[in-house]
Parts: sequence; structure tokens; C-alpha cells
Amino acid sequence: MKDLTIVKIGGQIIDNEKELNKFLISFSKIKTAKLLVHGGGKLATELCSKLGIETKMVEGRRITNAETLKIATMVYAGLINKLITAKLNSYKTYAIGLCGADAFMVPSEKRKKGKIDYGFVGDVIAKKINTDFLKLLLDKNISMIIAPITSTKSGQLLNTNADTIASTLASSLGKYYKVKFIYCFEKEGVLNGNKVIKTLNKTTYAKLKAKKVITDGMITKLDNAFAAIEKNVSQVTIGKANELNKLLKQHAGTTITK
Amino acid sequence: MKDLTIVKIGGQIIDNEKELNKFLISFSKIKTAKLLVHGGGKLATELCSKLGIETKMVEGRRITNAETLKIATMVYAGLINKLITAKLNSYKTYAIGLCGADAFMVPSEKRKKGKIDYGFVGDVIAKKINTDFLKLLLDKNISMIIAPITSTKSGQLLNTNADTIASTLASSLGKYYKVKFIYCFEKEGVLNGNKVIKTLNKTTYAKLKAKKVITDGMITKLDNAFAAIEKNVSQVTIGKANELNKLLKQHAGTTITK
Repeated sequence: MKDLTIVKIGGQIIDNEKELNKFLISFSKIKTAKLLVHGGGKLATELCSKLGIETKMVEGRRITNAETLKIATMVYAGLINKLITAKLNSYKTYAIGLCGADAFMVPSEKRKKGKIDYGFVGDVIAKKINTDFLKLLLDKNISMIIAPITSTKSGQLLNTNADTIASTLASSLGKYYKVKFIYCFEKEGVLNGNKVIKTLNKTTYAKLKAKKVITDGMITKLDNAFAAIEKNVSQVTIGKANELNKLLKQHAGTTITK
Repeated sequence: MKDLTIVKIGGQIIDNEKELNKFLISFSKIKTAKLLVHGGGKLATELCSKLGIETKMVEGRRITNAETLKIATMVYAGLINKLITAKLNSYKTYAIGLCGADAFMVPSEKRKKGKIDYGFVGDVIAKKINTDFLKLLLDKNISMIIAPITSTKSGQLLNTNADTIASTLASSLGKYYKVKFIYCFEKEGVLNGNKVIKTLNKTTYAKLKAKKVITDGMITKLDNAFAAIEKNVSQVTIGKANELNKLLKQHAGTTITK
């Protein structure tokens, strides 16, 4: 099996040009086949605010109406995606910028209205990931930079959690590649107080959730991380974007175990 | 040689959801390998205006400062590109949305300051088109939907004329495919008064320019059309987007001859 590195990058680093650039240089030096899934940063929220569009958040998730979907598509799949892709090509990473709607690569369905109506938000249909398309490019050493917009069968664009997209891609491609999956953000890993937890298994995770040591957005991230390590992925490590090299070698961050 | 159809779509049709949709259904029915290059429509101008960014035009071309480059990248490579691509996938055209920066597919350089400083505007480096990448996907029957943003070798994004991108792609791919190149917009073709000119050669074109029958934006379009028919392209036809089928058969619009 060939090696494949999948990196998810999100949070504040997207908004910090200098830090993002350092990260992209590290990413460009990864020798294996590779994918990058990125989140959105604050830019979409800022643009909404400038345009007088109210941003509603429930449980750390953006409620996406028709207007905020347009903004998300513009900012994530347009500006951020192309800035990253152009930079990576200049660093000799042969890269194309896509979103889940391209080649119907990450099919999704609109989230059902429950007690919360999330609006134009997608839930990934994991078993329908277009791995043929992904493999075609990966095997030609073309990296894909993937923005968190997906679409339904009828072509409706949907705002979709980038952590979930990354995790689902890792598991789906884990059937064909030996996958290292690295979650990068602004923290040094999963923290217990100020201390980085070096390895985290499911039992400890449950305990730390019960004690409210782990909360909010980190739960989505970790649920996705555990889903990946339980399905086809050989390494899952979470940590700081400017330590990408160390994270790859498990010399920093939190490594997830079964 | 395999057949390849390259369509450029621009102008008012981009802003008209219903007309655009009809066009995409026709495009999805083209049986050959195919590419679609799209322009921007009014959306970028509208967004600039909502955000209080002044849009400067000189000789029909937008002057692109750092702020308008961001808007162009968001609107062209983000919103319009992904709306079109998601729709086409729903019509069973296997499509991905890209811009010229992806895979450094359409390399460009920043336009030199002459009497006008166009700002972040790209001039395509025709001999460096990444035809290997384009062929890889076309030969797998994957269509590319291409937004008019390109980049330099150092990763600087640039706003770039969509007509020029389309014409350059047509000529570059004309070495490997038998290319039909269709320019779609809101008019029925090149007009002499109210009458569509059925075929237009270079001599007649020069005369009509001298008489000011052909002016402004149409000159860029026609210069690109003649460049294509003189270099490797087997058919160039210009006309109305809702007549795409007829244009392909030269039953409508203006066909360009040497």
C-alpha cells in the first residue's frame, strides 16, 4: 500500500497569512501523496457582518441561510481555497483546489430539521465518497486542497463540517492507502488543563468528556478522529499547525488510539 | 484525433438563473470531451458596490486592486464556479470546477504598467498551458469548469480575461484534439446593424472595425476568436447561449473563418 497523508487545517491559522504560509511550506515538503482539507476562519463571519448578514451559531455550528451559504461558498471554495492552492503550486506541490461538490466527490444530504434547523448544512454520505476520482489524481501525484462545501444529488450546495469531510476522506481512502491523518489547529493538542495529552484512547476520552475537560468544538473534532482511527486509518494525530513535521512523526500533539 | 468541445459563457446569462440552467442542460448533453470557461457577470460589481469598493473600468476592462481581486476570486472561482459545477454533476456531466491557478494550468504574468495600470490583472503565458493535466482529466471524461482567475509562478492570483483563457486553451488543446470552440453570450452573433453575420473572415473583420460596426468588448472576443481559428482550432462559432445546439452545428451565430 502506498502512503497517503491527509491534513486538516482550521481555526485561527487560516486568518494569519504568515503562519499559514509557514504551514504551507511544511505541507509542501511532505513526500507522500497528500490531501489538505481546510476550514473557513473568521473571514466569512467578517464578510457577513460587513454585508449586514447576521451570523447565527448554535452549539458551535453556523446556521446557514441562503445568504450565508453564498458567503461560505465564496470565501471557503473561492478565496481561501485558491490562495492556498496558488501558494502550494509555487512551492512545487502539484495541487488543485476543489470542494466536495466537484466530481460529486463528497456527496451529502441536507441535514434534517430536528430541534434545530441548521439551514443549508450538509451531512456527508460516507459510503458514496468518489474514491475513483481521488485515486486518479493521487496516483498522478496531484494533491487536492478541499474546501468544506458539498452538494446533494440535485446540485444543491451545502455548508459542511470540514473535520467530518477530512475524517470521512481518511477512512474511505484508508482502503487503498496507508493513511496518516493530521488535524492541525492553534492548540498544541488535546489539553488536560495546560498539559498536552500524548495519547488518547476512547475510554479516557469518555471520562474527560464526562468531567467537562473536553467540550464544545473539540468534541466534534475528536468524534471524527476516533471514527477515523476505528476505520482504516493508521495514524491520527492532533496538534499545532506550526509543528506539522513533529505531528507526522508523533513527536508532538495528541495521538488517538483505539 | 478525439473531439473536444470548448465553450465560453459570459455576459448577462451568468446572472439569469433560469437561462443559465437551460444552457447547462444543453451543455450537459454534448457527447464529446468538453470544457466550460465562464466569466463573471454583474455579481462581482454588485458585491463591490455593497462593500463600498469602487469598480474602475478602462476600455471595458476592470481595474483590479487588492480588494477587487479578492471579490473576483470569491465570486468567479467560488460562487459562480461551484454553482455551475454542482448543477452539471446533477445533470450527469462528470465535472470539476477550477481556475487557471489550479495545477498551474493557465500560468500568467502580471500585466506591465503601460499608460494604464490594470492592477492585479494577468496576461496568459500561452506556451506554458498545462496540457498534460487537462488531457489527464479529459481522457477520463471529466469536464473542467474554469473560472477566469490565474496565478503567477510565485503564487500571486490575478484576474484574467475569460475570452483569452478560453481561446488559449482551445489553441493549446488543438494539438491533441479536434476542437470546436463556441463563444456564448447574450447576442445572436456578430451583428452588422440588426443582422447576424453568418461567416466572418479577417479581411471583413478589419473593414467592420474601421467602420466602427464592431467596437469595444466585441473586439477582444473577436481577436481571441481569430487567434483560435488561426492556431489549431477547427471551428469557432459565436452566438446566443440558448442556441448552443445550433451553434455547435453552425446553424446559428457567426462562424469565424481564416
